[in-house]
Amino acid sequence: MQHFLGTDDLTKPQIQALLDDARALKAAPQNDRLRGKRCALLFFNPSLRTRTSFQIGIADLGGTSVVLDAAGTWPIEVTPGAIMDGEAEEHVAEAARVLSTYVDLIAIRAFPKFQDWSVEREDAMLHGFVKHATVPVINMETIVHPCQELAMLLALQERHGSLEGKKLCLTWTYHPKPLNTAVANSALLAATKMGMDVTLLCPSSDYILDDKFMEAGRRFAEAEGQGLRVTHDIAEAYSGADAVYAKSWGRLDQIGLPMEQRLTPDEFRRFRVDEEKMALTNSATFSHCLPMRRNVKVTDAVADSEQSLIIQEAENRLHVQKAVLSALIGS
Amino acid sequence: MQHFLGTDDLTKPQIQALLDDARALKAAPQNDRLRGKRCALLFFNPSLRTRTSFQIGIADLGGTSVVLDAAGTWPIEVTPGAIMDGEAEEHVAEAARVLSTYVDLIAIRAFPKFQDWSVEREDAMLHGFVKHATVPVINMETIVHPCQELAMLLALQERHGSLEGKKLCLTWTYHPKPLNTAVANSALLAATKMGMDVTLLCPSSDYILDDKFMEAGRRFAEAEGQGLRVTHDIAEAYSGADAVYAKSWGRLDQIGLPMEQRLTPDEFRRFRVDEEKMALTNSATFSHCLPMRRNVKVTDAVADSEQSLIIQEAENRLHVQKAVLSALIGS
Amino acid sequence: MQHFLGTDDLTKPQIQALLDDARALKAAPQNDRLRGKRCALLFFNPSLRTRTSFQIGIADLGGTSVVLDAAGTWPIEVTPGAIMDGEAEEHVAEAARVLSTYVDLIAIRAFPKFQDWSVEREDAMLHGFVKHATVPVINMETIVHPCQELAMLLALQERHGSLEGKKLCLTWTYHPKPLNTAVANSALLAATKMGMDVTLLCPSSDYILDDKFMEAGRRFAEAEGQGLRVTHDIAEAYSGADAVYAKSWGRLDQIGLPMEQRLTPDEFRRFRVDEEKMALTNSATFSHCLPMRRNVKVTDAVADSEQSLIIQEAENRLHVQKAVLSALIGS
Repeated sequence: MQHFLGTDDLTKPQIQALLDDARALKAAPQNDRLRGKRCALLFFNPSLRTRTSFQIGIADLGGTSVVLDAAGTWPIEVTPGAIMDGEAEEHVAEAARVLSTYVDLIAIRAFPKFQDWSVEREDAMLHGFVKHATVPVINMETIVHPCQELAMLLALQERHGSLEGKKLCLTWTYHPKPLNTAVANSALLAATKMGMDVTLLCPSSDYILDDKFMEAGRRFAEAEGQGLRVTHDIAEAYSGADAVYAKSWGRLDQIGLPMEQRLTPDEFRRFRVDEEKMALTNSATFSHCLPMRRNVKVTDAVADSEQSLIIQEAENRLHVQKAVLSALIGS
Repeated sequence: MQHFLGTDDLTKPQIQALLDDARALKAAPQNDRLRGKRCALLFFNPSLRTRTSFQIGIADLGGTSVVLDAAGTWPIEVTPGAIMDGEAEEHVAEAARVLSTYVDLIAIRAFPKFQDWSVEREDAMLHGFVKHATVPVINMETIVHPCQELAMLLALQERHGSLEGKKLCLTWTYHPKPLNTAVANSALLAATKMGMDVTLLCPSSDYILDDKFMEAGRRFAEAEGQGLRVTHDIAEAYSGADAVYAKSWGRLDQIGLPMEQRLTPDEFRRFRVDEEKMALTNSATFSHCLPMRRNVKVTDAVADSEQSLIIQEAENRLHVQKAVLSALIGS
Repeated sequence: MQHFLGTDDLTKPQIQALLDDARALKAAPQNDRLRGKRCALLFFNPSLRTRTSFQIGIADLGGTSVVLDAAGTWPIEVTPGAIMDGEAEEHVAEAARVLSTYVDLIAIRAFPKFQDWSVEREDAMLHGFVKHATVPVINMETIVHPCQELAMLLALQERHGSLEGKKLCLTWTYHPKPLNTAVANSALLAATKMGMDVTLLCPSSDYILDDKFMEAGRRFAEAEGQGLRVTHDIAEAYSGADAVYAKSWGRLDQIGLPMEQRLTPDEFRRFRVDEEKMALTNSATFSHCLPMRRNVKVTDAVADSEQSLIIQEAENRLHVQKAVLSALIGS
C-alpha cells in the first residue's frame, strides 16, 4: 500500500488486515512504530474528530504531527500549466514537494466546493498531492471518507462478527442542508467489498450517488455473490436488516445552484431514523458518522439504544487510522 | 479530586496541597508524571496564556496535548432532548463521549455569550462535558477561572507567606467594555477560602457579583473567622490593605442589552489603580490577571513597581496547572 | 549570538558556521540538542512553510513547540507609556515577559501593516519582544526574512560551492499586488555579505529598497571587494549572471495609499522570469522563495528546469532553522 486514498483501491484481505491491526492497537494503544516519523495534517475544511484522532494516534505511536489549517493560508492551484493570475498564490506542485521534504507522510482533508460536480468528482486536490508528493498520502475526507468507513467496518465486525451476507440498510436521512456525499460513497464501497448485502434507501432517484461509486459497489457485490439494490420504500429497506447506517447528503444534480434552491424539502423529514423503522429490522445495529443532529437525523431513543454503535465507531477512527499509518510508514 | 471545575469545590487543605505541589514543580519543572497521557484543550474562546501554559505544562510532564479551537468547527448543543434543527451540528453528549475515547483529560474554555445571565450562570457547556465525559474535566475559564486564582494565591503566598488575616482589596477597575466576571468571582472565592479578609470595591451596587458567589464568599469568610464586605468608597477599600487585586467586569443586569448601552461610564475611570491609591495601603502588593490595558486599568508606575506581582502570577499559571493535571491524571 | 533577528547582525564566519551546521543536520536530521527546551512560535500573519519547518525542526531536535496564532487573540501595543484606550488589550511588555517564563525561545512573524513605512521600517513588534523578553528571539519574517536567506545561501553553496565573486541577478518580478520587501531586503544583505557581486534589477527607481538596506548592502559589498549596482535594464542585469533570484515587492512610497492605486502596472509583466532572459546568463541557477505564482512571476519552463533551486531552498529552511535553534539554545 503506497497511499491510502480510498477503500476501493484495496483488496478485501488488505482491508481485513488493517481491521485486524486496528483491533490489536485498540487493545495495546501505545508503541514506537512511528518513532522519528513526522506527519503533516492538512485541513482545507474544519475538523474535530479527525484532527484529534490523528494527532493522538500519531503521538500514541511515537511520531510527530503538524496540523496545517489551509484556510489560514492561501488558495492552492491544482491545474497543470495554469497562469496563476487569480487568487491562488501557490501551486500544488510546490506545496506537495516542499511538504515532502519536511515530513514522512501527508494527510489531506479537501471537500468539494459544491460548485460543479463534473469537475469535483475528479478529486483534483487529493490527486494533485498524490502526483507531486514523494511521501505517502492519506485521504482524511474528500469525495470519499475511507477512514470513517474502516471505523464503521470495525464497529460492525466487533458486534456482528463476519459481515458476509449480513443485510445493511444504508439510508439517506434528513438534514436541512445538502451535505457532502463522501461518507455515503465510502459506506457503500466498504460494505459491498466486505460482502454485505446492501440496500440503498433514498427519497428518490435524484438522490442516487455518483455512477462511479454505484458501479463499483455493484461490481464488489457481485464479486461477493451479494446484492446492491436501490429503493425509495422505507419499509422495504428496513425489513430484515441486520445493520442500519444513516447519512444525509445533497443531490448531485443541484450542485452549483443557489443554496435556497438546494435546501432539503420538509417532506423528507419522514426518513429520520426512529423506533418504528428500527422495529422492522432484524434487531439491527444503528450507526452514523459524527456530527449527528439529534432528533432531526435520528431520534434520541435510537441514538442512545443498546444497538447504537455511534460512539464505538467514532472511537474506532483512532484505532483504524493508527493501523493505516503503521501500514504506510510504520517500522 | 475527580474534576477541577472551581476552587469553591475544594477544601482549604486540597487547595494548599495543589499550591505546595506547584511550588515544587516551579523548582523542578520536568518529570514523567503524565507519560502516555493525552489531553484535549478545547477552546470556545481565544487564548494566549492559557493555551501556551497548558501545552507547555503537559509537555513538561511528558504528556501529549491536542488544541481544539471550537470556533473553527460548529456550534454544540447542550440541552438534553433538543430537536437539533438550528445551528448546532453536534450535541455535547457525543462531543464529550467521543473525546473521552481519544484522551485521558478534557480541559474547556467556554465564556458566557452575554445574552441571558439567568441561563449563563448555570455554566451549561462545562457541566454538559462533566455529565457526559468519562475522563476528568478542567475548567480553563467559564463563569469562574480557578486556574487563574490558584496562580494568584501562589503569588500572594510567595510574597506574604500565610494569607490568613491578610487584608485584600479586590477592586473593580475601569475598562471601556463590559467584561466577564469569571476572574472576579474566582478571586473572591479563593481569597475568602484561604482566610483573607476581603473588601470588594466597585462603583455601585449594580456591579456586585452574582449572589451565589457573594454568598459562598461570605460562608467561606465566616468559616475562617474573617470578613467579606462591599464598599463603593475607594479610600476605605484601599486603607490598610496588604494586597490589591484589580479586575474589570460588566454589570450582570445589563447582560443582553445592546453593547452601546453597556459601555462603561467615563466617570468610573477614577477607579484606575494608581500611586495615590496604593499610598493608602499597607505597602500592598498589586496584581491583575493578563491581558491588562496599561494606563487605563492601572498606571505604568504601579504595574512596574516592586510590589507588582503580575508577571509572577502569570508565570504561576504554568506551575499550578501542572499540579492540577498531576492530581487528576498523574502517576 | 543572543538573538537571530537578521543576517546583517552576523559576521560572515558566523553565517558560514550556521550554514555548515545546517549541512550537517541535513545529513543527520535527528538528535537531542533541544531536549527539554520549549519554543513559542508567534504568528501575526499566516504561514505554511515557516510554521511546518519550525515545528518539525524543533521536534527533530527533541524539543517542544507551541504555535500561537496572534490573529486569534487581540492586538498588542508596542509603544512605551501608551494609554491603552484603543483596540490593544495587551502590551508587548507583558506578552514578552510572560512568554519568557513559559518557554526557552520565542520566534515571531510580524509583517508591516503597509500603512506608514516611516514607522514600519523600525520593526517595532520584533524589537519590542527583544527589549522585554528574557529568552532568545528569532525573526520568522518582519521587514527582513533571515531564515529564508540562510536557506537561499545554503542552496547556492550546494550548487556553486564558494559564492565569492559569483554574479547574482536579484530581480524584481511581476505580481499583481504590492508585496512585502522583506525577502528582497534579506537576499540583498545575505548575498553581499557572503561576497557575491550583486545587480539589483527593478522596473524604476521607485522600486529601490529602503536606504538602510541599500547602504548596508553597499558596505558589505565593499568589504568583500565586490559590487552592488542597480539597473532597470533587463538584458544588462541577466547577462553573465551565475544565479538569478526573483522576488516581487511593492513601492515603499506608495505604502498607505488605497490598494487600487498600488496595484502593479501591467507593463511590468515583462519582468517575469522566462527562458529568453535565462539564456542571457552564465547557465545561471534560478530561485525564488515560496509561494510563487507560476507563469506570472516565472514560467513553468524555468521553475521546472534543472537549474531551478526552489524546492531545495524551501527544504533548506528546515535545516538552517535547526542550526539557528541549536546555536541559540542547543546543548
